[in-house]
Amino acid sequence: VSQQENDEEWGISASNDGVTFDYPEIKYEFLDNTADVQLHAWGDSIEEAFEQIGMAMFGYMTDIERIENKEMKEIDIQAEGDLMNLLYKFLCEWLEVHGTEDYFIARKIEISEFDRQNLRIIARGFGEQFDIKKHTQGTEVKAITYSNMQIHEEKPTNDVYVIVDI
Amino acid sequence: VSQQENDEEWGISASNDGVTFDYPEIKYEFLDNTADVQLHAWGDSIEEAFEQIGMAMFGYMTDIERIENKEMKEIDIQAEGDLMNLLYKFLCEWLEVHGTEDYFIARKIEISEFDRQNLRIIARGFGEQFDIKKHTQGTEVKAITYSNMQIHEEKPTNDVYVIVDI
Repeated sequence: VSQQENDEEWGISASNDGVTFDYPEIKYEFLDNTADVQLHAWGDSIEEAFEQIGMAMFGYMTDIERIENKEMKEIDIQAEGDLMNLLYKFLCEWLEVHGTEDYFIARKIEISEFDRQNLRIIARGFGEQFDIKKHTQGTEVKAITYSNMQIHEEKPTNDVYVIVDI
Repeated sequence: VSQQENDEEWGISASNDGVTFDYPEIKYEFLDNTADVQLHAWGDSIEEAFEQIGMAMFGYMTDIERIENKEMKEIDIQAEGDLMNLLYKFLCEWLEVHGTEDYFIARKIEISEFDRQNLRIIARGFGEQFDIKKHTQGTEVKAITYSNMQIHEEKPTNDVYVIVDI
């Protein structure tokens, strides 16, 4: 680079003052933005880890500290097969609530029923609608994935990992 | 979902007013965010396509419309091997200027010398330092990649494609 030489030669700040300057036509575009983030949550129980990963998803969308407890939404889901499908459906359902209920953001999620036998969860989210004037804009979560999903039920931390597309 | 039923049952907006509410401890974190975007630019000549993809990179970092022509930076680079390496070095050099020169953003890039024989480019960028109070924050470009890099010198569009990590 001839950056330093150049700065001396041209005199950075003054060089273009007052000079008419035509900006070029735009001949470019942005394509195929792919991105993901891995959510990792834990808890004293597997229920708490599920609650926490739901809150993690909302926490990625905005600064959760600014979300107030104004509304409550309840979900009731049933999975098929295994705990991974239950985790997947749990997050998909919250994402759908967000997408269809005026961008509702839950600051707190409470699972009232966690039925392992029937793979059913009833849970409540407490929060409010996202408001760009009041809340910070984080990154939109577009989809939940099964990619490298992990559920570790070993005590004491019950770690769960989910990669979401953003 | 028992969303609709639930709304009726609980009365959305009023349900939690004035109720003391303890927010749960945070037991989650965000890991391994990977992301990229493909830049596609074109021009009447391969030189113009290079200029345009440089502007595309800066245009991804901020709303280029707000960038004024206050400073000029010059780069002088030499590649080895082929045109792809030249394109790679061209963008890396602008990214380095951005990183080392107070977040300089070029709104306009002009190539004054494009020496195909010796794979050398001399170019000037006109713009100003990024200022969060004045400019919109786009997404930081972290690195240029060779991944699926394409240079199509067929007239009239001379398309070039570069994937950058964000």
